[in-house]
Amino acid sequence: MYRLYASQATASLVVHWMLIELGVPFEVEMLDFDDRAQKSETYLKLNPDGVVPTLIVDGAPVRETGAILMLLAERHPEAGFAPPAGSRDRAEWLEWMVWLANGPMAAYRLWFYDGDLPGLDRAALQAKLESYWTKADARLAGRAFLVGDRATTADLQLAMLARWSRNMPRPATAWPNLKAYVDRMRARPGLKDVHAREGVTDWIND
Amino acid sequence: MYRLYASQATASLVVHWMLIELGVPFEVEMLDFDDRAQKSETYLKLNPDGVVPTLIVDGAPVRETGAILMLLAERHPEAGFAPPAGSRDRAEWLEWMVWLANGPMAAYRLWFYDGDLPGLDRAALQAKLESYWTKADARLAGRAFLVGDRATTADLQLAMLARWSRNMPRPATAWPNLKAYVDRMRARPGLKDVHAREGVTDWIND
Ligand SMILES: N[C@@H](CCC(=O)N[C@@H](CS)C(=O)NCC(=O)O)C(=O)O
Ligand SMILES: N[C@@H](CCC(=O)N[C@@H](CS)C(=O)NCC(=O)O)C(=O)O
Repeated sequence: MYRLYASQATASLVVHWMLIELGVPFEVEMLDFDDRAQKSETYLKLNPDGVVPTLIVDGAPVRETGAILMLLAERHPEAGFAPPAGSRDRAEWLEWMVWLANGPMAAYRLWFYDGDLPGLDRAALQAKLESYWTKADARLAGRAFLVGDRATTADLQLAMLARWSRNMPRPATAWPNLKAYVDRMRARPGLKDVHAREGVTDWIND
Repeated sequence: MYRLYASQATASLVVHWMLIELGVPFEVEMLDFDDRAQKSETYLKLNPDGVVPTLIVDGAPVRETGAILMLLAERHPEAGFAPPAGSRDRAEWLEWMVWLANGPMAAYRLWFYDGDLPGLDRAALQAKLESYWTKADARLAGRAFLVGDRATTADLQLAMLARWSRNMPRPATAWPNLKAYVDRMRARPGLKDVHAREGVTDWIND
């Protein structure tokens, strides 16, 4: 039984989604950021950075979105959310997973938490995020998924990150290949389900 | 035969170091950043972001430092640079690898390439980098390595990142557990060797 510490429509959503896609038993504890539940003494013991997601696996906390996704894919290989070690697609999958953590995840953190690094030029940060959409859009030309011919953890994460741009001047869906891709990802029952479970009603039907 | 595209004492150093530690055949092409060789038409075909490292594996380019390290560890399991899938330490290793990409690697990029995101408060960025040393230092209390009881890719990467702080007001070695750890990592013949091969003479004997 997995136990996920989450907060509505944040980075934890992709882990929640992944658990649903895998069809494994799990329970979710939703932390209310308005109450600063992510900074409670109890939660900081599980996640010293005071952020979500944290997934309890065999009794021990695992942190970092990308790491949790990679671990889940590895623990449930039959679901095919990661190309197997030694396969032709493996290197590309690792590259996209690390890129998502190093690029868009880090930039979005600055975008949504502008107290983290005061003073930065938000237009430049917006351009940086847009450069990631340009890169992903180019990759998706003529491809259904980032890697190989089925959805991997990288696709779940990219689809979630695309949603985060919905109120930006140029959302991810302004890029044509990304738009088609996001529409395909939005058609997945798992994404609809996690939105329903977290009470998120916007974007999914746009 | 691996082929590494590198530039002196940059992020590619950890891949160069890893190849030496593995004892596998490889060749290195050093790109001169003063000539902007990383932005040449030929190199951009291998690495559209125009950054190093790129490692050619079975004829195809692999990018992103952390991804290359994880792939190499997986291709050479006998060297023990990653806890095997299914092992107790696996989740922690994934977490540190993703954290290194998302946290320190992204923050250092802003530190060294201040054109990337103009205007940001360098004191706040310095504090952010220092918070990473505090976190790593706490982790290393009573431990020889970040994960398990032998060096993994996460240790090679952290040791390289520690060097990058050498000219900062509070270098990583100002934290006592990190100092002891960095000294242990600096004693490794592989790190001495890669410094010699890249012509880097500072820090290694500090
Ligand atoms: N590096 C972490 C970052 C997670 C993160 O920043 N989560 C945000 C929500 S998207 C959070 O928990 N914020 C609460 C806070 O910073 O107080 C990861 O990838 O899991
Ligand atoms: N996300 C990349 C970033 C690599 C990176 O920024 N490399 C720097 C050197 S440390 C670079 O090549 N800079 C040259 C440039 O930006 O022109 C990775 O982790 O490999």
